[in-house]
Amino acid sequence: MTTETARPEHTNYVHGYSDAEARRLGDQADTLVELLHADTAYPAGSRVLEAGCGVGAQTVHLLAASPGVLLTAADLSAESLAQARARVAEQVPAADVVWHHGDLHKLPFPDGAFDHVFLCFVLEHLPDPAAGLAALRRVLRPGGTITVIEGDHGSAFFHPDSPAARRTIDHLVRLQAAGGGDGLLGRRLHPLLTAAGFTGVAVRPRTVYADGGRPALAEGFTLRTFVAMVEAVRAEALAAGLTTPEAFDRGIADLRRAAGPDGTFHYTFFKAVAVNP
Amino acid sequence: MTTETARPEHTNYVHGYSDAEARRLGDQADTLVELLHADTAYPAGSRVLEAGCGVGAQTVHLLAASPGVLLTAADLSAESLAQARARVAEQVPAADVVWHHGDLHKLPFPDGAFDHVFLCFVLEHLPDPAAGLAALRRVLRPGGTITVIEGDHGSAFFHPDSPAARRTIDHLVRLQAAGGGDGLLGRRLHPLLTAAGFTGVAVRPRTVYADGGRPALAEGFTLRTFVAMVEAVRAEALAAGLTTPEAFDRGIADLRRAAGPDGTFHYTFFKAVAVNP
Repeated sequence: MTTETARPEHTNYVHGYSDAEARRLGDQADTLVELLHADTAYPAGSRVLEAGCGVGAQTVHLLAASPGVLLTAADLSAESLAQARARVAEQVPAADVVWHHGDLHKLPFPDGAFDHVFLCFVLEHLPDPAAGLAALRRVLRPGGTITVIEGDHGSAFFHPDSPAARRTIDHLVRLQAAGGGDGLLGRRLHPLLTAAGFTGVAVRPRTVYADGGRPALAEGFTLRTFVAMVEAVRAEALAAGLTTPEAFDRGIADLRRAAGPDGTFHYTFFKAVAVNP
Repeated sequence: MTTETARPEHTNYVHGYSDAEARRLGDQADTLVELLHADTAYPAGSRVLEAGCGVGAQTVHLLAASPGVLLTAADLSAESLAQARARVAEQVPAADVVWHHGDLHKLPFPDGAFDHVFLCFVLEHLPDPAAGLAALRRVLRPGGTITVIEGDHGSAFFHPDSPAARRTIDHLVRLQAAGGGDGLLGRRLHPLLTAAGFTGVAVRPRTVYADGGRPALAEGFTLRTFVAMVEAVRAEALAAGLTTPEAFDRGIADLRRAAGPDGTFHYTFFKAVAVNP
């Protein structure tokens, strides 16, 4: 649910620059592509901006679903952008993409330069998501749409329930907040987009639910996406004095039980589509 | 999400015998009927048992969707059963219903007497839901199906977030637990049904999400269903020493903000269908 994308430079919320992390983000996108992206398709010839493309985990699906779009993919990290470019070259070689290295708050494009803006797991990292939305609305033409996908870590609940596991998830939320982000942003999409002046704001929850009857989803989402994301902040949570190794590891072990044959796991993403009036 | 249905007689978890409560349960059922019941329809002539029909809030929808079924509706409360009978007589007068006053653990029906068993917001009130499922499986014929709908109060999250509101919801969960129930049962449906010997257990989350773009849902579900349910335990929470009037009322006031134009509210029900092998 987190990417390096558009993360403000001052944040301490560090993970994701390793190969393992890039692989995790790829796994995550494949597991979730149907749930999150299947209903996003832009007409050929549309000028589309993906703001905060990160390592391109979503970019390849966007391009596959919308052949013939004129995509501009922007990211704050040159390293992520290079990975995104390589991924697209391999998976969607015919795609026509302009790669832009820069901050989404200071895009060098004229007003109304795009027909559609797409961003996925980006607002959660911004200290001021309203300012980010305002900057993106500027480059969107009147009548153009914005599509925003975000998670919400407060939507995670599971069986067996475990206070230790809940605390461990809360460490992630606190660290993200300390870095200026918001791991609970999904629930705020409607008011944020409305306040930014978008109209026709339609937000729909996209729920992932895995149980013993869906072992592949428990493996692909619960373990390899969610638990891996929480586990990735171990060193940072310890350095910040939020927890002890024993308590953190117990939380992770309890979370893993939710992916077992008797366990269940629930998580909600939110997908919003709105219009620039 | 709670009904009088099949509540064990020793519980202190009291609400629901007033007219206001019966109305609330009716409102709730109308708001949720499409989400929870639209895909349940039994063939004419099927022998169906509704275990814990309560005041008939779900019964009328079950009958409307499945004309010609031979329904037996059972409940532990004679008073609820009388209300259910009156509701069905008014709303589905042609329905053929046998009303049974009794405990679902001790049904006087032969093994395999029913083709289908349906229960909604019942397991959450049982001290031993596994025993309840075993008793119901006995009266279900081999190859027959069981359909179970439950909420999970741990799925409630909202904007603006509020620790006071979260604590107030937690009082409801604790009171229900003290009465032998489980307000977090939804997440356990898959392991419970599997352990009870059912096969082909398919559990699907049914999410209610209301925001400023859906004021009728915010009114019908967030306020009149969820907040009303939490508010109904005020006296009991105070008597149990869980909270103060000020703290409880602040939690309720904060929850109400989630139904305002800038608020959002999320809740997940779970619906399970399984087969008696």
